[in-house]
Amino acid sequence: MTGPTRRGEFRLVADVFAPLASSYPLAFGLTDDAAVIASAPDEELVVTADALIAGVHFPTTERADLIARKALRVNLSDVAAMGGRPLSYVLTMALPEAVDEAWIELFAKGLKRDQDEFGVILIGGDTVATPGPLALSITMFGATPMGRRLRRNGARPGDTIVVSGTIGDGALGLKVALGEYEGRSDLAFLAERYRLPSPRVALGRKLIEVATAGLDVSDGLIADLGHICETSHVGARVEAARVPLSAPAASLLAENPDLLGTILGGGDDYELLFTVPPLTMLPPLVAAGGVALTPIGTIVDQRSVDVVDVHGRPLELGRAGYTHR
Amino acid sequence: MTGPTRRGEFRLVADVFAPLASSYPLAFGLTDDAAVIASAPDEELVVTADALIAGVHFPTTERADLIARKALRVNLSDVAAMGGRPLSYVLTMALPEAVDEAWIELFAKGLKRDQDEFGVILIGGDTVATPGPLALSITMFGATPMGRRLRRNGARPGDTIVVSGTIGDGALGLKVALGEYEGRSDLAFLAERYRLPSPRVALGRKLIEVATAGLDVSDGLIADLGHICETSHVGARVEAARVPLSAPAASLLAENPDLLGTILGGGDDYELLFTVPPLTMLPPLVAAGGVALTPIGTIVDQRSVDVVDVHGRPLELGRAGYTHR
Repeated sequence: MTGPTRRGEFRLVADVFAPLASSYPLAFGLTDDAAVIASAPDEELVVTADALIAGVHFPTTERADLIARKALRVNLSDVAAMGGRPLSYVLTMALPEAVDEAWIELFAKGLKRDQDEFGVILIGGDTVATPGPLALSITMFGATPMGRRLRRNGARPGDTIVVSGTIGDGALGLKVALGEYEGRSDLAFLAERYRLPSPRVALGRKLIEVATAGLDVSDGLIADLGHICETSHVGARVEAARVPLSAPAASLLAENPDLLGTILGGGDDYELLFTVPPLTMLPPLVAAGGVALTPIGTIVDQRSVDVVDVHGRPLELGRAGYTHR
Repeated sequence: MTGPTRRGEFRLVADVFAPLASSYPLAFGLTDDAAVIASAPDEELVVTADALIAGVHFPTTERADLIARKALRVNLSDVAAMGGRPLSYVLTMALPEAVDEAWIELFAKGLKRDQDEFGVILIGGDTVATPGPLALSITMFGATPMGRRLRRNGARPGDTIVVSGTIGDGALGLKVALGEYEGRSDLAFLAERYRLPSPRVALGRKLIEVATAGLDVSDGLIADLGHICETSHVGARVEAARVPLSAPAASLLAENPDLLGTILGGGDDYELLFTVPPLTMLPPLVAAGGVALTPIGTIVDQRSVDVVDVHGRPLELGRAGYTHR
């Protein structure tokens, strides 16, 4: 079923992608069967992979360069969540027939832009035809100091729970991107945050030294905190009012308190969520990562993730949001 | 657009796939953001990636375990083509709604079987939903002796061109698999060769010591020989009659001489095609790889890939096959 059809297009892909690998000699100009990954003797290689499908992970109408950058950034966020220094990536693409030269060139331009911003480089991949939607898969490599990496399983009772940046922008931004708040130009920031997350790479590297556990918020704050608690065999108590919100997210929440469920339960924030021993000084971290860090709660013995209001009363996530129990 | 739909299924996937990673502690049971790839100080890490789409790279009706094994084997073939020792792989899957529990379990069974046969292990991945066809992407890692690997660019005029196993089975096997020769039970071997290629891993590792260039035959013998010639800046002269054929392929060719074009031009053989200096002894290689090796031609100065008949007369690849010029 493999065939020489659209060979011209695949030649174009090679021509467009090879320059993205040109500064890395061990990628052999993408002309060989495999690339070589060099690593330093005092570092370990971490690897992560994410797949993205048009119509599932981004709108089918999304701009090609933004698709490319988002695909890189969700992987960069995973490398950050391990405390890694991003190195390189491998890209496989399944291209529907409708994809044309201009699309591929714009896609490569997006890759180039974020390669430059985050210091990663393309080292290999594969391009195939598909009768289905555009499908991307990126495998990304990073380096961590030998034997030291940010894991999910080290949170201990008494640890402070900290989150970077603001939470809920991704899930609210998806609503904006889908047209739920048409005409609200004050919410454009949220759509941008959904379309182009900011992986916290510099912060992640700093966290290796202080955090007991950490990950990136992709499934939603509460679900991801649950992942930390599950692998660390602990529980968590989060004060809802302390969860940091962007101004547009705060104004939407003021209009509709039910959105608290979307904010705490939605995904796609790509902020770092981590735990530190009690009394850990956070200000130096702020300076290091260039992003605000906010303590939002405490790790507890009891094996559940509880969200409480300002009076310490438990809130429960209903279908439409958090409500008092 | 990411959402908690089908979370149950993804939990199943995790449950089914985690055991495939259990013997590799640095995969962290597939529960973390990334895995760590350990490598030996005297080895280099090679990486390759291939994507496979249902209906493009295998029939949509193909058995799940055979899909899994073929996906692993096309990547193993690339590692073999670099002379690498296969180590581990990362798998991303886009699953259509029709995929059920039994399918996923059979798929994992196929992975397990070839993991055991080839000594590779799953270390990470991602599973997403797709409205399109099943899409798989595997990134595979291998180890080569430091600074030594089988490349495509070292062929020199006078080198002997050698191929492993038999050629044309993949392309003819696809025809059989698509029902072109219904009722011909004598051709079942060809369909099997198409469905489940045999990556020449042991041979590839031996070739590091003797071959000047090499790759695996996936695009077709002549096209792949062209890749070697292009990157090595040489040409090639292939004697059609010396190209090794399986008995079923030979009998089909006897029935229809036009099939020579399919045999030499079709893909999916996953044999190793390589060049060695003149007078290189091949018999020890046969013993090492457990597969027949056949000299089929010579590398030449003149920059073209020519196929000649037994009288040395050039053959030309027409639409239906090779014909005299």
